[in-house]
Amino acid sequence: MTDAVRMERDTFGEIAVPNERLWGAQTQRSLQNFRISSEKQSPELIHALAVIKRAAAEVNLGLGVLDTNKAKAIVHAADEIIEGKHAGEFPLAVWQTGSGTQTNMNLNEVIANRASELLGGERGEARLVHPNDDVNRGQSSNDVFPTAMHIAAALGIVKHLLPALKTLRDTLDSKAQAFADVVKIGRTHLQDATPLTLGQEFSGYVAQLDHGMRHLEATLPHLYQLAQGGTAVGTGLNAHPQFADQVAAAIGKLTGLPFVSAPNKFEVMAAADALVFAHGALKTVAASLMKIANDIRWLASGPRCGLGELSIPENEPGSSIMPGKVNPTQSEAMTMLCCQVFGNDVAVNVGGASGNFELNVFRPMIAHNVLQSIRLLADGAHSFNDNCAVGIEPNRERIDTLLNESLMLVTALNPHIGYDKAAQIAKKAHKEGTTLKAAALALGHLSAQQFDEWVRPHEMVGHAKG
Amino acid sequence: MTDAVRMERDTFGEIAVPNERLWGAQTQRSLQNFRISSEKQSPELIHALAVIKRAAAEVNLGLGVLDTNKAKAIVHAADEIIEGKHAGEFPLAVWQTGSGTQTNMNLNEVIANRASELLGGERGEARLVHPNDDVNRGQSSNDVFPTAMHIAAALGIVKHLLPALKTLRDTLDSKAQAFADVVKIGRTHLQDATPLTLGQEFSGYVAQLDHGMRHLEATLPHLYQLAQGGTAVGTGLNAHPQFADQVAAAIGKLTGLPFVSAPNKFEVMAAADALVFAHGALKTVAASLMKIANDIRWLASGPRCGLGELSIPENEPGSSIMPGKVNPTQSEAMTMLCCQVFGNDVAVNVGGASGNFELNVFRPMIAHNVLQSIRLLADGAHSFNDNCAVGIEPNRERIDTLLNESLMLVTALNPHIGYDKAAQIAKKAHKEGTTLKAAALALGHLSAQQFDEWVRPHEMVGHAKG
Amino acid sequence: MTDAVRMERDTFGEIAVPNERLWGAQTQRSLQNFRISSEKQSPELIHALAVIKRAAAEVNLGLGVLDTNKAKAIVHAADEIIEGKHAGEFPLAVWQTGSGTQTNMNLNEVIANRASELLGGERGEARLVHPNDDVNRGQSSNDVFPTAMHIAAALGIVKHLLPALKTLRDTLDSKAQAFADVVKIGRTHLQDATPLTLGQEFSGYVAQLDHGMRHLEATLPHLYQLAQGGTAVGTGLNAHPQFADQVAAAIGKLTGLPFVSAPNKFEVMAAADALVFAHGALKTVAASLMKIANDIRWLASGPRCGLGELSIPENEPGSSIMPGKVNPTQSEAMTMLCCQVFGNDVAVNVGGASGNFELNVFRPMIAHNVLQSIRLLADGAHSFNDNCAVGIEPNRERIDTLLNESLMLVTALNPHIGYDKAAQIAKKAHKEGTTLKAAALALGHLSAQQFDEWVRPHEMVGHAKG
Amino acid sequence: MTDAVRMERDTFGEIAVPNERLWGAQTQRSLQNFRISSEKQSPELIHALAVIKRAAAEVNLGLGVLDTNKAKAIVHAADEIIEGKHAGEFPLAVWQTGSGTQTNMNLNEVIANRASELLGGERGEARLVHPNDDVNRGQSSNDVFPTAMHIAAALGIVKHLLPALKTLRDTLDSKAQAFADVVKIGRTHLQDATPLTLGQEFSGYVAQLDHGMRHLEATLPHLYQLAQGGTAVGTGLNAHPQFADQVAAAIGKLTGLPFVSAPNKFEVMAAADALVFAHGALKTVAASLMKIANDIRWLASGPRCGLGELSIPENEPGSSIMPGKVNPTQSEAMTMLCCQVFGNDVAVNVGGASGNFELNVFRPMIAHNVLQSIRLLADGAHSFNDNCAVGIEPNRERIDTLLNESLMLVTALNPHIGYDKAAQIAKKAHKEGTTLKAAALALGHLSAQQFDEWVRPHEMVGHAKG
Repeated sequence: MTDAVRMERDTFGEIAVPNERLWGAQTQRSLQNFRISSEKQSPELIHALAVIKRAAAEVNLGLGVLDTNKAKAIVHAADEIIEGKHAGEFPLAVWQTGSGTQTNMNLNEVIANRASELLGGERGEARLVHPNDDVNRGQSSNDVFPTAMHIAAALGIVKHLLPALKTLRDTLDSKAQAFADVVKIGRTHLQDATPLTLGQEFSGYVAQLDHGMRHLEATLPHLYQLAQGGTAVGTGLNAHPQFADQVAAAIGKLTGLPFVSAPNKFEVMAAADALVFAHGALKTVAASLMKIANDIRWLASGPRCGLGELSIPENEPGSSIMPGKVNPTQSEAMTMLCCQVFGNDVAVNVGGASGNFELNVFRPMIAHNVLQSIRLLADGAHSFNDNCAVGIEPNRERIDTLLNESLMLVTALNPHIGYDKAAQIAKKAHKEGTTLKAAALALGHLSAQQFDEWVRPHEMVGHAKG
Repeated sequence: MTDAVRMERDTFGEIAVPNERLWGAQTQRSLQNFRISSEKQSPELIHALAVIKRAAAEVNLGLGVLDTNKAKAIVHAADEIIEGKHAGEFPLAVWQTGSGTQTNMNLNEVIANRASELLGGERGEARLVHPNDDVNRGQSSNDVFPTAMHIAAALGIVKHLLPALKTLRDTLDSKAQAFADVVKIGRTHLQDATPLTLGQEFSGYVAQLDHGMRHLEATLPHLYQLAQGGTAVGTGLNAHPQFADQVAAAIGKLTGLPFVSAPNKFEVMAAADALVFAHGALKTVAASLMKIANDIRWLASGPRCGLGELSIPENEPGSSIMPGKVNPTQSEAMTMLCCQVFGNDVAVNVGGASGNFELNVFRPMIAHNVLQSIRLLADGAHSFNDNCAVGIEPNRERIDTLLNESLMLVTALNPHIGYDKAAQIAKKAHKEGTTLKAAALALGHLSAQQFDEWVRPHEMVGHAKG
Repeated sequence: MTDAVRMERDTFGEIAVPNERLWGAQTQRSLQNFRISSEKQSPELIHALAVIKRAAAEVNLGLGVLDTNKAKAIVHAADEIIEGKHAGEFPLAVWQTGSGTQTNMNLNEVIANRASELLGGERGEARLVHPNDDVNRGQSSNDVFPTAMHIAAALGIVKHLLPALKTLRDTLDSKAQAFADVVKIGRTHLQDATPLTLGQEFSGYVAQLDHGMRHLEATLPHLYQLAQGGTAVGTGLNAHPQFADQVAAAIGKLTGLPFVSAPNKFEVMAAADALVFAHGALKTVAASLMKIANDIRWLASGPRCGLGELSIPENEPGSSIMPGKVNPTQSEAMTMLCCQVFGNDVAVNVGGASGNFELNVFRPMIAHNVLQSIRLLADGAHSFNDNCAVGIEPNRERIDTLLNESLMLVTALNPHIGYDKAAQIAKKAHKEGTTLKAAALALGHLSAQQFDEWVRPHEMVGHAKG
Repeated sequence: MTDAVRMERDTFGEIAVPNERLWGAQTQRSLQNFRISSEKQSPELIHALAVIKRAAAEVNLGLGVLDTNKAKAIVHAADEIIEGKHAGEFPLAVWQTGSGTQTNMNLNEVIANRASELLGGERGEARLVHPNDDVNRGQSSNDVFPTAMHIAAALGIVKHLLPALKTLRDTLDSKAQAFADVVKIGRTHLQDATPLTLGQEFSGYVAQLDHGMRHLEATLPHLYQLAQGGTAVGTGLNAHPQFADQVAAAIGKLTGLPFVSAPNKFEVMAAADALVFAHGALKTVAASLMKIANDIRWLASGPRCGLGELSIPENEPGSSIMPGKVNPTQSEAMTMLCCQVFGNDVAVNVGGASGNFELNVFRPMIAHNVLQSIRLLADGAHSFNDNCAVGIEPNRERIDTLLNESLMLVTALNPHIGYDKAAQIAKKAHKEGTTLKAAALALGHLSAQQFDEWVRPHEMVGHAKG
């Protein structure tokens, strides 16, 4: 034992904690008991916990169950964490108690020690603020941690993911409008099909993201319901009767989101359904982004031996061996992270389904995956937008060449000569490597003039702006 | 070639079809080309396809692009399918063309042949109604199949799943009310915790299902958007300009659901996001039901060596070797089918993310999984309700015994003597196998009278009705 | 109650069973208690159960614990089932008791009734053979069902899947050899890369399947371990001490596979790890087949606006609206079923992880998924082989054109002029739309003669036969 | 531009790099282009890449294609990385180019700059060693990165995971032996079943881990096949013909594992099947550990209202509100990380299936998940072993009480009085709350003496040591 540590104490006894650390006995114990991999509790979750601690202190003060000085010190300490000042004080692994108790205690301990110092006291056992009796007053990890998960997820969706998707959506929409006159071959089953405009193709991406944003918004009402006030098992034991509602209101004020106290605390503590459903929307957005990113890299494939209809920005050298190679790297980052979101979804589902009785104890894992998915999709959308989407341009010449070679323009003849004869024409042209027109005339199904009148690619794209 | 077959023809040539069958060349060809496992296109999907064919014929008649007699015959034939009359005529595998083209043609062929017979004609090549030019008029598999998927999924959710969940929810709610006075030990981390009422515990299940129903409802607006009218690639080529809207309206009328023509056809054909998101709600319901079914079987575990707090109906002999054994079989069926829904979710996600350009070609697989999940959850909820939930009863004596033994009643002392002293009492009682009261008095932290006044289980459950 | 039913009885009392059915009370009860979706216990599982019943009767006879006449009748009845004679007698849902008890009883009841008739007795309560005491003698569902799962999975892998993969592998290998001289452009990141031969490309597929078969074989040793003899909880209570080993030997003889009695019965009954791992190999094969099927449909994309390097068989009309369209439908069926296998994997994992104490009760679900995956992959491989792979041909002209346009031939210059100068050449040619040679000469990095000597596509493919 | 940066250059031009950093232009560019979440390339992967660079330099030196001084400097620089000296120099995100090109270049750049300094040169554009032409000599990211993935995964499995599982397995085995005489109630379907010993129960866990280790070992042969030497597309262009074999041998020597050059380079570059299969074994181990961890926490549930058969170490305070509460936190960490492994499995599957043509470009994501899963399972097994398994003790009194109350001891009567009568006894005792013996005598099915002779729990556990 050297000068560099102090002795902290919990109900299990003494334990040495580095002097320069604000955390206490239970954090230290968890560090030693859970040396598992490198994933730490997300900063977004620490932020949300600090928001709760601040709100709880305010409310407890107002309810007269917490000393004014202590309350103000707790608020101050929590604010410092919210501002990101003590980022190094939250070292605990995702893989710990399934209720997140030790991370709740990590907050309680850091705030208690910091608040004590703010009050002129010391950190450690002689501290002036108690982690449980003061900072955690009226709370239990069992209601604090689920509350923090809802706050962090809702903030992440509203403040980061939705704006990121909106940005990408707007870029794609501007492309859709800019490409409204570019008639191109359609492709179904990867095979040549009837034409559409490039603008219409991009309008589909825009619609996907529009739906995705609506799906995300549909998950918010459940996320806005907070467990706080349920304490140990949902009954609110040891919490003031007005604590739940007032804390939800305070959190709403601090975050700018319309949080409410969950009408049923048992559900929100024993299950994690709000997050399971929210991840259901996240994985849907991943499915959309994967489709979009794949389309764009395929359409940009080449430069000479692929489809080559689009040009995308060249951002970096593509190969350590092939000079001059440029790759669709933003699409690759995007499709990879979408795979991760699909994987995270399964982890969330299994954890979400595995609650027992009054508590779900797969919480840190669920939080880790939900918050990672939000971060991946938000950052991924921004990166894809800035480094790829904004610079997409059509290769008009190539697009035009392909359009005019397509055999599926024959579809325009259906209403005039019927499906079966049209099929004969397409098959003959394909087999003999000729144009549709040549095949049509050879078969005698129509005249050259009729062909020119009926097969007009630019009139086959309909009126949908997309 | 015997009397038993007739020759049908498609653009690939002749093929023999059993005389007793209404299907035609393309169905027959698919049967021969895709001999893969035993999963067939779902009846719900066939039903939805017939609804589309009926609606299209009506609309085409009204728009003047289909002969009245043909239209009426098509409507009649489609109605027969809707009524379930030709169930044996749809033999195609899930594992076929990814657009479902062959199943669309299966409908076209059966309806064409049946309509021909209704018009006094014959089935086969001399038929009076053409599968493509008449039955499929204004349509493409590429818009028909996605439309059918939305119809079948929406109908399944609205007509089967939501009512099934409502039934189970109501049963659990009646239990919650009936058990409102049963105070019992709470359990977190599987460990004894502070008390709650059995009614509160059940109220959590009710809240889960209430949320689940709202989540499902949130998926409907996207499902109500129909691809019909997009034809081959979303542009609506060869379809009458009013076809899309009128067909959606006609389908709405036939089904009683508020279907609309999708404002963006490219999205709804190239992606399957509405179904990916809908399955996100389905898997959330699965997570809820898994939690509920697990709780109930654990609470009913025993009869003598488990928790034993609940009695559930005994429905069948439980063991082929252990006489008199009764098992929580409805919970087991439920948890198994929830696993399946989690698996299906992944299949849907990967398929949904894998569209290219103008079409997603993982459709029959997606439909199979979505419709199976709906069926599993709906039937599972009914079975669990009828054969288990309605018969759940508390074992009041056992519940009372456990409640009074619990050490976590000590939590009620926190506000009076603080967390640390309360912990000492609980630990002493646990270590020495004594009652809390004895430990409390031995430690001298409070008087017997105080203990009796402060530790009252029935006052520790709060006011939440659940 | 009409003539059409008889009364059967189990420990729960009487229940009416259709007279024409061989099953008894417990099967009937299960039918009524589990009306959940349409998935039935797999025929492969019923077959395996019949194999066990036959083997058990033989062994019990040999051990002197079963009457000779009864034993012979049981063997005879089981043989009939093995031959597929009573396929309609096994109507139970996958979604039932998690131990599969009711399906074990279904076998016991059908065999007891059938054996009774074979002995001149009747079916029903007066039967001469008892479902539990005779047919199930020395057995429990808890050891029978896991045993059946291992048998069915091992048989499926060895007798169906491995041969199917071998067939496809041999076809692809013959293509690899036939295409050994076809030099083509390579593609990485979907972008043009350095050349290889089409034979080399196909050799990669062959290697994937070779590895896949080895992976499957690596799962067999665990599958060959049988639970039979563990009875209720693994201790072998009520089974003859020699029963386990003798039954495993008898099953080995009946199936031709080297089954052994599991050295630890507790593992094989309480867990399903052998099947979880086997499905790990199945999903790996799915990943391989998905890659192969995707490559082939992309290389065959077109006919005029895609990559167009391969021709694949045209098996059916591709579109109900676009005449003459041909689609890569076998690839689509394959990629869809691979998605299903990925989904099934998750269901198996969650079920496999969810055993408690002496028994895993997610068995019918696990069996359903494992056997479906085997069937999908085996049938899928056959279908893909017969209807696609065998007919793949290169479009040599197209391949050659693309090869000679590629800029990545510049890579051959690295050893001569360095990566940086080579990159300048490629970038210049790309930007200006010229040939590599023109760009190289314009930059003055080498002479025309050097270019011709160093850039020889046919010498850039190495010596690997693949 | 300040003193703090230097200008580095790649084929895209100049870019400012912090002076104190060894990395170069491409690393810097990637940092700026991929600001996506916080997941970095795993240290295990960086280590493996450094091993490759070291081996390649040695081999290139031996083959005479790399200058001696340069080679020695590269070896030295790589060794420093292997020793962990430059951990801060590898800042790139998982979410980047799907081939990992930028991380390969990160290694090339750091080593080139560091080697230059070792040779007395400077870092930056005037460096004496070239990242591509020297450090990457004979290599492409396309073969380097897959090679590194195989090395890192194989090392992780062999050096970390297998020993961790062995440690836990040995602990559980010692428990199995120590508990060999503890007869306890068995539980199937969570319901009381026939007895077994606690040692037998634990022997099942041991067998699970034994199988798990064998499954992991079965994945090594494929992982031991290295892509190195395939260069850009598998043909080995620009690599010395002996490079592949010699590098594999050198890597084998450096790592102590039997790596070989993959006989087919196309497979190992275009697919990631070795890793997909390896993760199939990882997820199986996760399924095993989840079952074990769940059993232990359930058996330790209580202390007074659960099953209470086991005591597990108390490591930390369990609740921030409930004083004295102790929770099965190691089981919770374990079950959470098993969920993560199940999720990771899906990500790996989808990525593994998504290769196209000559390259799989989902590599950094696959590496991230595989290496995380290995780390989670290895660290998790150690943590669970040290902090839980070693301290497990039976609560013999509780176990004995439950054993003697069980109704399923009646199973011992089957051979004497038949299943049906035995069932009557159990049901009567259950219904009336009496002992089995009382019910048996009341029914008159046997005498008291017979009961005592036939129903002996300690003789019902068989001879299996487990």
